[in-house]
Amino acid sequence: MTSLDELPLRPELRGRTPYGAPQLQVTHRLNTNENPHPLPAELLASLGEALGHAALELNRYPDRDAVALRTDLAAYLSRGGDRVEPAQVWAANGSNEVLQQLLQAFGGAGRTALGFTPSYSMHPIISAGTGTGWVDGHRRADFTIDAEAAVAQVREVRPDVVFVTSPNNPTGTAVALETIERLYDATEGVVVVDEAYAEFARTGTPSALGLLPGRARLVVSRTMSKAFGMAGLRLGYLAADPAVVDAVQLVRLPYHLSSLTQAAARAALAHTDALLATVDAVKEQRDRIVAALPSLGLTSVPSDANFVLFGRFADASAAWKALLAHDVLVRDVGIPGWLRVTAGTPAETDAFLTALGEVAPEHRLGD
Amino acid sequence: MTSLDELPLRPELRGRTPYGAPQLQVTHRLNTNENPHPLPAELLASLGEALGHAALELNRYPDRDAVALRTDLAAYLSRGGDRVEPAQVWAANGSNEVLQQLLQAFGGAGRTALGFTPSYSMHPIISAGTGTGWVDGHRRADFTIDAEAAVAQVREVRPDVVFVTSPNNPTGTAVALETIERLYDATEGVVVVDEAYAEFARTGTPSALGLLPGRARLVVSRTMSKAFGMAGLRLGYLAADPAVVDAVQLVRLPYHLSSLTQAAARAALAHTDALLATVDAVKEQRDRIVAALPSLGLTSVPSDANFVLFGRFADASAAWKALLAHDVLVRDVGIPGWLRVTAGTPAETDAFLTALGEVAPEHRLGD
Repeated sequence: MTSLDELPLRPELRGRTPYGAPQLQVTHRLNTNENPHPLPAELLASLGEALGHAALELNRYPDRDAVALRTDLAAYLSRGGDRVEPAQVWAANGSNEVLQQLLQAFGGAGRTALGFTPSYSMHPIISAGTGTGWVDGHRRADFTIDAEAAVAQVREVRPDVVFVTSPNNPTGTAVALETIERLYDATEGVVVVDEAYAEFARTGTPSALGLLPGRARLVVSRTMSKAFGMAGLRLGYLAADPAVVDAVQLVRLPYHLSSLTQAAARAALAHTDALLATVDAVKEQRDRIVAALPSLGLTSVPSDANFVLFGRFADASAAWKALLAHDVLVRDVGIPGWLRVTAGTPAETDAFLTALGEVAPEHRLGD
Repeated sequence: MTSLDELPLRPELRGRTPYGAPQLQVTHRLNTNENPHPLPAELLASLGEALGHAALELNRYPDRDAVALRTDLAAYLSRGGDRVEPAQVWAANGSNEVLQQLLQAFGGAGRTALGFTPSYSMHPIISAGTGTGWVDGHRRADFTIDAEAAVAQVREVRPDVVFVTSPNNPTGTAVALETIERLYDATEGVVVVDEAYAEFARTGTPSALGLLPGRARLVVSRTMSKAFGMAGLRLGYLAADPAVVDAVQLVRLPYHLSSLTQAAARAALAHTDALLATVDAVKEQRDRIVAALPSLGLTSVPSDANFVLFGRFADASAAWKALLAHDVLVRDVGIPGWLRVTAGTPAETDAFLTALGEVAPEHRLGD
């Protein structure tokens, strides 16, 4: 049997392991921020129809530019009040592919990306995969971004791409628009605001979509994996100046988005209200988790997402294992003392809080 | 309106245009080597069932490793007599994404790929998109590869990745296994045999799958877009040593393959015989085109694919336009004097040959 070391692999990949949360068969899977609610019946019927229709032409390549889908996504984004045109929208197989295309166009060998860690761990990984250098941006001890310090760091590093995750994953808090504006002004590079969890933000938290006019280097990325509850569909998208869409079209693989993906995403967008009806229910569970933590001697980071970063533990990895022993799978995101839990159904919250009640006394950080 | 030039685009992308054949509304679309036969009714029923089942769990991420699909693909590849294990197979959104992952793992900045042009035009484009340098390999004037000369060039250039397209696109001819063996022995890099059209090869043309045992740096890529008639599905795959699969897993985007794609591909593979039943019909039309060309004062390159490179024309671009005026869309692949036509249904062949009969007298290269 040949070992990986015997192949002419790129040197920087040697010794690496594939990225990904454990896919374990556990009763309560609260580790990947999926939406626990299955698709509503009305959508399942539409999906069947749309996919059946698409299957009739499956021998033909899909619309390479996904024009109809981008039109529907633009209409969805425009609901919030910020007018977004179809030419400003681009879609791909998950926001991971959107980000990869952005880095192929604006990052790559000899260029640098900066993101404020801890944040979405795929940002540095996709940077590495595209040969883009990576610099860790600083955060305060409470995981918020100090705009002043961030601007100073961006001016010093002069990155080609700046990532801002808002709401931040895995910590949960949204970033003030003023911070994003100041970062944009401080760089000549592209600023990517990763809004994967935007729909879960607390009331009154604005999207960076409102900052797009007049900022051609600003990109807002979104996904249908979370609030729309369609993680299995793999549909991510961005909104930006049309010139950014022109740029990613230079590096996108032709026909990257299958006919089935385009048809299913459009069917889902036609049922936006029914899908987003689950968002309030999920936010309720998130707030319930947040409220329950202090009585267990634990705390959390303010969350605008469908998850909660909770702690602190003497040994987060040991606490993770103890919860798994109670059939509850949460995420050890590598932040000492903290774990991340997805807000799901009321029953999942019950199971999580019960398990945590058992685990907390032994594992929480001593006073 | 912002122009692309005002964005901090990578310098090598400046002035480029997006890759892709024109997607025109023409009666006879013979330009992208699609299979003209719609999916058989028995498969449409299975597809509906499989997709409906997948939709029930669409709120969950797909199987990141696509184990069941890779098992089915391995079983399909093993039908030819060369035993292929699931651990030797990897799948992605079209063979374009498979090739991109291979270049991310084995190419990239500071590394070089070599392919024998004219060949599949995405090979140099994906190389560029991953920062991999590109060298044009030489072919004879009749578009075949001179093994001696190819080996000498590979020894001189020392590429990290060697592409061999067999059957070659856009010229149509399969490459002798001995040539592939010699190229493999001449390089320390990875040899990728792109067999997108393998199922259409003339009887007795062996696949490079038979060369895999004992050659850990050899990769055979395939697609369901052509013989399987599922271009809209976007499903490409590779067979290689399991260590190669380990390597691409270091660079693949997690959950890159949607639940719908995995389910639809598996449904199709369960109907392999019905799907491949169209292959003989397509080959018949290909051979009919080849046989008819001499009476029009034209010729072709020997084809093992579902298309024919035909010529010669005084001005291929003018001949392309003249055919389009007859509502027949073929492909101008940029080889002076030649055009490429997809072999489709008998009616498409009729329309093509009728149009060509009108066009040939004015446009064929004079004696």
